[in-house]
Amino acid sequence: MADPRWLTADEQRAWRAHLTAHRLLTHRLDRELQEHGLSFNDYEILVNLSESPDHRMRMSDLADATVQSRSRLSHQISRMEQAGLVTRELCEDDRRGTFAVLTPLGYHTIERVAPDHVAGVRAHFIDLLNPDQIREVEEIYTPVVAHLQGR
Amino acid sequence: MADPRWLTADEQRAWRAHLTAHRLLTHRLDRELQEHGLSFNDYEILVNLSESPDHRMRMSDLADATVQSRSRLSHQISRMEQAGLVTRELCEDDRRGTFAVLTPLGYHTIERVAPDHVAGVRAHFIDLLNPDQIREVEEIYTPVVAHLQGR
Repeated sequence: MADPRWLTADEQRAWRAHLTAHRLLTHRLDRELQEHGLSFNDYEILVNLSESPDHRMRMSDLADATVQSRSRLSHQISRMEQAGLVTRELCEDDRRGTFAVLTPLGYHTIERVAPDHVAGVRAHFIDLLNPDQIREVEEIYTPVVAHLQGR
Repeated sequence: MADPRWLTADEQRAWRAHLTAHRLLTHRLDRELQEHGLSFNDYEILVNLSESPDHRMRMSDLADATVQSRSRLSHQISRMEQAGLVTRELCEDDRRGTFAVLTPLGYHTIERVAPDHVAGVRAHFIDLLNPDQIREVEEIYTPVVAHLQGR
């Protein structure tokens, strides 16, 4: 087997900066959301449902959209169901499973929390970047998403 | 209160691309490491210890370096102790707690797994970027890290 192509110093610094920034950022956003009784993961689920027709998504689509396993999402939805933010509904037309549906409380919660959360995303990430860098982030990461989704 | 400064379409796309790419990437790297019996989190801990003098770090420093809470790290180290990859040692000189120490098996494991893991980091991220983009990732994320660490 050929020698591994270790990362160069430049590549190492880029990879570390990406990893550390992401972890610190989601850690901070998670902590800020805790003040509203939500986790970052809860928030992402509420956003996805609130932007979907009839505020509902098939569980498998919601798992794909939030990049997590079906079983992890199922635990998450159970906790959010207990908090009254979502409900589960069986799909009558086909056998492809269950929908997660936003409740009125869930919708009210996302409306109430979104302004603070967006302020955090701006303060800790977006407003630290200039317009060129905003475009570069999209240009750099979109092909990574396409590669990993096998497109 | 003023209207929230919602993200513009450009900012929204950048933020989504960053988030989705990161999740898909760590999900993939985690799955590849599972073939070696490690999680991505295990790997990060082994790397940090292997690069430290005497292959040991204070638990609080290791928590900072891997951006996780002391309690979460403690559970993680317990699992890795059971797998024989690390041990805990009480600090005799001071009362500032415990060290995590890499075992010979832990060192052997990181040596064995690192080539495959680096190949994954290249295939799914680094090799998709040109040299300018490598520099841009560092330039974009380093100030985010500094901001979130309060420097």
